[in-house]
Parts: sequence; structure tokens; C-alpha cells
Amino acid sequence: MPVTIYDVARESGFSMATVSRVINGSSKVKPATRKKILETIERLGYRPNAVARGLASKKTTTIGVVIPDISSSFFAEVVRGIEDIANMYNYNIILSNSDKNLEKELNLINTLLEKQVDGLLFMGGEVTEQHVDIFQSSTVPVVLAATKDPKNIFPSVDIDHFQAAKDAVMAFIEAGHRKIAFISGQLTDPLTGYARFQGYKKALDEANIPFDERYVKIGNYHYESGMEAMRYFLSLDVKPTAVFAVSDEMAVGAIHEIQDQGLNVPNDIEVRGFDNTPISSMVRPLLSTVSIPQYDIGAVAMRFLTKHINEEPIENQFVILQHQLIERKSTKQSS
Amino acid sequence: MPVTIYDVARESGFSMATVSRVINGSSKVKPATRKKILETIERLGYRPNAVARGLASKKTTTIGVVIPDISSSFFAEVVRGIEDIANMYNYNIILSNSDKNLEKELNLINTLLEKQVDGLLFMGGEVTEQHVDIFQSSTVPVVLAATKDPKNIFPSVDIDHFQAAKDAVMAFIEAGHRKIAFISGQLTDPLTGYARFQGYKKALDEANIPFDERYVKIGNYHYESGMEAMRYFLSLDVKPTAVFAVSDEMAVGAIHEIQDQGLNVPNDIEVRGFDNTPISSMVRPLLSTVSIPQYDIGAVAMRFLTKHINEEPIENQFVILQHQLIERKSTKQSS
Repeated sequence: MPVTIYDVARESGFSMATVSRVINGSSKVKPATRKKILETIERLGYRPNAVARGLASKKTTTIGVVIPDISSSFFAEVVRGIEDIANMYNYNIILSNSDKNLEKELNLINTLLEKQVDGLLFMGGEVTEQHVDIFQSSTVPVVLAATKDPKNIFPSVDIDHFQAAKDAVMAFIEAGHRKIAFISGQLTDPLTGYARFQGYKKALDEANIPFDERYVKIGNYHYESGMEAMRYFLSLDVKPTAVFAVSDEMAVGAIHEIQDQGLNVPNDIEVRGFDNTPISSMVRPLLSTVSIPQYDIGAVAMRFLTKHINEEPIENQFVILQHQLIERKSTKQSS
Repeated sequence: MPVTIYDVARESGFSMATVSRVINGSSKVKPATRKKILETIERLGYRPNAVARGLASKKTTTIGVVIPDISSSFFAEVVRGIEDIANMYNYNIILSNSDKNLEKELNLINTLLEKQVDGLLFMGGEVTEQHVDIFQSSTVPVVLAATKDPKNIFPSVDIDHFQAAKDAVMAFIEAGHRKIAFISGQLTDPLTGYARFQGYKKALDEANIPFDERYVKIGNYHYESGMEAMRYFLSLDVKPTAVFAVSDEMAVGAIHEIQDQGLNVPNDIEVRGFDNTPISSMVRPLLSTVSIPQYDIGAVAMRFLTKHINEEPIENQFVILQHQLIERKSTKQSS
């Protein structure tokens, strides 16, 4: 007897409506709920009806996925979400790693499309005009995960980078800080770079704190550049009392630079990261950060892509998932 | 004019013989040299003659690669080595992530073989009898990277896990330690678990240090299990003075547990990890560890596989690459 959606609901302990929302890639499901239901689906081997359609046609049922950086634990969790949904809908995944090299990335995308995949998931990284050209020439659907294109041409699943950065800085302002340093991504990168920088500036602006460019350093998201930025901030006459870095690795680098110079986190300087990757729990003090629903970004984007492939109706082409501030020990506890 | 091996030699500054050794996947090339030559090859777009053969035939020129854990930075670097060689020989890679789940892994392997890949690279993880059965039924070559099968049936590229662990423990013994704790992998895992455990015991044995099972804890390679093991060691009446963990993450967990209990690394307890993954440089004190040539394991295994696919002559079916002790700040400097 085939496994039904009813079996999944009973086994997982959630309602049929919730299970249905997960299967349909709705953004209105809590991350923990989505994960639990997908685990049940995998355990029971449930397959939605849509699969039968896909299998009956002559398609390869293969999805191409481009990852900018295979060593990043941020993308590892997105890939898990993609794979769980792909598994449920009987798609195979071809993962391709571009190592943040634009030329390699464009080649990979071309190669995937030549291999006649049924759809393409483009993950993270900047969407340049060259990307747009290739995507527009594609005969199969393209969905963007954890990124979007500047003109909103392609369907995408992402967070609100501007708001997330603004929230992180506002938390510092509410704790009484006025001298808040910012370790930024490249400003030419519209989302993780420029949009987060704008969020930082907006929070200062609303609190009537003048923008001071000495408190901004551009990093490359990796540990060493966090240390370098912090070394510069600590060389200033008036040192910052709080630092917000747009990646956890840079935040950990900043913490170690502060400690190496004999100062204390959070008593002398508070530090906040971004992404809530595993390293944020492997540092002393434990890193306060902005949590991004990586698994959900992958799962919703993959379901989105299957809808496009099977020409199912779609409510919203541009899904924004919720971020969340996580308070650990690198910021003072507000009580 | 096509790029020749001579151009690669001139541009990279190495001899034709060395370039030729890299192209042929010889194990007798220094890691830094291999990486530099492969970068030059990629930049110049050099393609060995063997490629022409492959392209002329009707093959898909696709390799299936099974990764046990996509979030592990150990495997990320192995994948880089695989991709650089695959790129040179014009192979596409299908990466499949098994999340250390045996059933999922066997399914993935079957799926890859059904998709008629030209060869299969199986990375890390234990090779069970079920794996052996599938591999033996495969009509395309199978190469094992960073693992091997118990009966040495399939070609493999790996390190000497026994000797690497023994060397790590001997370094502690030579520094005067007698109470050396060991955070092990699962002993049912023949290589990263059992072989390294045997290396630990052998080093003690040769130094006439009696084996004490209270100084051994089994972990799962992740951070939390390193903390838990250390918590246990610190609860003993006679605490160890040195700890060797078979993964960097567990070693970092051990360091943090020691620090959380108010003790100092390395003055009170010295700690050494395994793998030399990026986290070993993102901790205070910097982690001493055993360096594994991950990139080379990937590159040599991939070249090995292309040789099998093209039926080129092979000298040695079981390649062992060199490990190396890396002294940083979590062990006392010997001077």
C-alpha cells in the first residue's frame, strides 16, 4: 500500500495542512517543523503525486545546483534542504562548486544547461549581467536561493539582508552603544555587501548617530579579514565599543584579535556575527549572531523549482524568509 | 596553437618531468607543487592527449563522487583536488552527499551507477560488505579516496592512519608525557577509528606505558563529543597531561572544556588534533595537529580513476600519501 500524506501527518504528529504546506514549499512553516516533517517523509518513503507525472515524461529528472563555496558551512545546510525536497520529488542533484570564481561559475552553468538538466538552482553569490544573460537563454527554469538578481527577473528565496543588518545594529544601539564598528562584505556585492551596509547606516541614521567611515572595514567573509579589520579598529584613538561583522567567521576573527590584545569580549567590546553557522558555537565566548534559515532556504527554493518545472501555480515569485537575532555570550545579556 | 606540456612547465617554473608527474597523478610530488602546477594548467587551459580519446568515444564523461558529509571542511579540500584534475581531463562531476547515512549512501551509489557515470569515486567513510557488493557489481571503475576496503580489493588513495596516530602520540611521549588521553573515533570504523586507536596503543606499548582504558573515550568527530570526552577525563582522580583527538573539531572541543574549567592549554594540558582543517587556525591557542594532504588525496584519486577508465598502465593500486605533524600553540614548543 502506498504511503499517503495522512501517514506522514500521523507519524510526524502534525496536521495534514502543515504537512501539505511543507510539501508545497510554503514559507509559513517553522524551520524545526519543516525539518521534522521532511525527516518523516524520508523515513516513510512518501512520494507526492506530482512525481508520477515527472516520471512518466521522458525527462532526466536531474537538477543542477551551483554552489559558490563548498567549504562554507552556510551552503552545506542549504544543500541539505535542497536534497531533502529533491529526494521527495525523485530528482537527482548535480552539485557544482564554483569556488567564487566568476569565469568558472559561468562555465559550470553552461555545462549544466548543456547536460539538459530539468532546472537550475543558483545558490548565493552575486547575480551579474552575465548571469542574467545565461539564465535568460536557458530553456529550463532557474531559481535563485540565498540571493536574487538586481532587477527581480528570476524567482528567488532569500532573507531581507537590509533589515537583518539593521536589526543587528539596532540591538547594539538599544544596549546603549554609539560607537559601533562594521565589518562589511564587498559593497559591489548587492546583497551580503551593499544591502547589509545600507542596513547598518539606516540604523545609525534613525538613532541620530553620525556615520563615521573609520568604523567601516571591508572584509572577504573569512577569519583573517575579521582579524585585520579589528586590528585597524583597535588602532583608532577612539575605539568602538561594539562590532558587527557580516559573517560568523569574521566575527570570530575579531573576537580573537580583541583577546590577543588583552581586552575582554563582551566587557570591553561586544561582538555580533551573521549566519549562525556551526563555528558560532565553537568559540569562547559563544558568538551572538543573526540566524538565517539556511535549511528552509534550500527546501523552499527546491520546491519552488519543481513547481516551475511542472508548471504548477505559484503565488509569490520572490519569497523572503525570516531572520532572527541569537543572543549568546559575545554580547552583554540584556535583562 | 594548442597549449602544450612545455608551456605549463615554463609558466609554472617547474620541470617537464614534475609537470608530467602531476598530470599522471604520481604520489611523489609535494602538495604545494601539485597545487601550483594544477593552477597553471587551469589558467592556460592545457588538456592532456588522453582527453581526445575520451571525447571521441560515446561516453558521458561524467564521474560520480560520493561525499559522506558535505559540511566537513576535510572533504571540501579533497573535492577541490578532484575537481581540478577532472577539469583538466574534461570530466564532469556529480557530487552526492550521503550525510553519513548508510542506507542513503548505498542508494546514492546505485543511482549514480544507473545514471551511467564513467567511474565512481567513493570518499571517506567505512567500506562495508554491502559497499563491496555494489562496487563489485559495477561495470565502471571504482576508486576509494581517503579510505580503503578491508580486503584491499579496490584501488585506493589514503594515508597511513595507524602510523599517523602513532606519530602524534610518540611526540607527546618524547615531550615527557606518560598520562596521554585519546579521543577516538568509533572502533567499528576500521581506519579513522580502529587503525588510529591501534596506533595510539602501539606508541604507548613501545614506550612501556601501560594502557589504561580510562584514558580512552569514543567520540563522533564533532565538537560536542570532544567537550564531553574531556569533561570525563577531567573528572578522573589522575588527570591526563596530554590529549590526542582524532579530529580537529573534537580537539577544539577539548580545549574549550579545559579552559571552561579554569585550566590552561598547553601549560596544564597539551592538546593535539587530526586533519589540519581550517578550524585548527581559528582557536586560541592555535591547534597543533596532524596534517593530511587532502587536496592531493583528491587529485591523485581522480587521476587514478581516469587511468582506470582509459585502461592506462598503473604501477600501484594502493597509494599511501604522507602525513605531517604540525606544531602550533596547543602543545609546548620543543626547543
